[in-house]
Amino acid sequence: MDDKNISQAVVARLPRYYRYLGDLRDSGIERISSQDLSKLMKVTASQIRQDFNNFGGFGQQGYGYNVEYLYNEIARILGLNEKHNLIIVGAGNLGQALANYMNFERRGFIVKGIFDNDPDLYGKELRGIHVQPVENIEQFIKENDIDIAVLTIPKNGAVKTAELLVRCNIKAIWNFAHVDLNLPDHIAVENVHLSDSLMKLSYSIVNGNR
Amino acid sequence: MDDKNISQAVVARLPRYYRYLGDLRDSGIERISSQDLSKLMKVTASQIRQDFNNFGGFGQQGYGYNVEYLYNEIARILGLNEKHNLIIVGAGNLGQALANYMNFERRGFIVKGIFDNDPDLYGKELRGIHVQPVENIEQFIKENDIDIAVLTIPKNGAVKTAELLVRCNIKAIWNFAHVDLNLPDHIAVENVHLSDSLMKLSYSIVNGNR
Repeated sequence: MDDKNISQAVVARLPRYYRYLGDLRDSGIERISSQDLSKLMKVTASQIRQDFNNFGGFGQQGYGYNVEYLYNEIARILGLNEKHNLIIVGAGNLGQALANYMNFERRGFIVKGIFDNDPDLYGKELRGIHVQPVENIEQFIKENDIDIAVLTIPKNGAVKTAELLVRCNIKAIWNFAHVDLNLPDHIAVENVHLSDSLMKLSYSIVNGNR
Repeated sequence: MDDKNISQAVVARLPRYYRYLGDLRDSGIERISSQDLSKLMKVTASQIRQDFNNFGGFGQQGYGYNVEYLYNEIARILGLNEKHNLIIVGAGNLGQALANYMNFERRGFIVKGIFDNDPDLYGKELRGIHVQPVENIEQFIKENDIDIAVLTIPKNGAVKTAELLVRCNIKAIWNFAHVDLNLPDHIAVENVHLSDSLMKLSYSIVNGNR
């Protein structure tokens, strides 16, 4: 089974499968057909089968999928069976909210360090972690096996900070700054542009939805 | 010019155009060709022209786009020339972070009320607004011309709360709860599933990016 070269669209759908399968598992359901999963998730059964065929299929035709097995396989494909250490750069409201969000830790995303360039925040404790000056980032990444940096700083400083993180060999950036980061291809970037999604809502309100 | 029946894909790209045009305007740039905008945004010039043709074109061939005019037109199409009142349901870390995020207000999204079902939070003040019990939502929406509800509550209560909001004739829901809301078509929904985007990063780290 080769997990490489799967299209971004398929990968983008995996977390949603993972979420539904987790809910099914938590409800004690052991098997589900692609038809029933299709109804639940409001995607076609053929889409589901196509998606899963990218990873070898996962199930027997006519017999349905084993929920626990499928859940664990998708977790493995998503890399959720490994721990990922992360740092948060920007200890403002959003950075603090993310630092305090326990659910990420449950999935193996461990906040190791929090950084800011506001001296008033230095030493402030968030879930047992003291905010440090941004100048410490390089050393900290080297010493703490950090995979992911969460950027929760204003757009002005974001590009420069992202370049610093690239020099520190960060593997992935979760970017909440309201700017596009143009980084080398080997760095994974996920943008969460909150204003963009609010603007789409505004469009729907003014123009009528759908 | 008819703004209706524009594809979701085009609408989804408008906030990004709006962001780049705002930056250009702030830098004092008055005109830009689709070629230069294309280089800046890393999309093809033909894509830009096609997107803008949905709204009548905006510019003269060979002469470039008037930045200020285009910025204002896209703002108008996105409904950003109108104010939208919103409430936040869920005054935990994320709800508080969003309440404190000034930028939304600058774009015309005004936080009018904040609600929670935790009595310990009742009366807590966030940017001059006191947290109220969820029971008050229905009355509050009636009296305060609320367009948008921001859902920052755990997934368990989210579906029931969304149904309440639909009964209150809310126009749009900005959903941060980690669950899909299956609502009537006339209600606009934007999901921000933070864990999903973190899982995509994890996939890229484990499988190599791109």
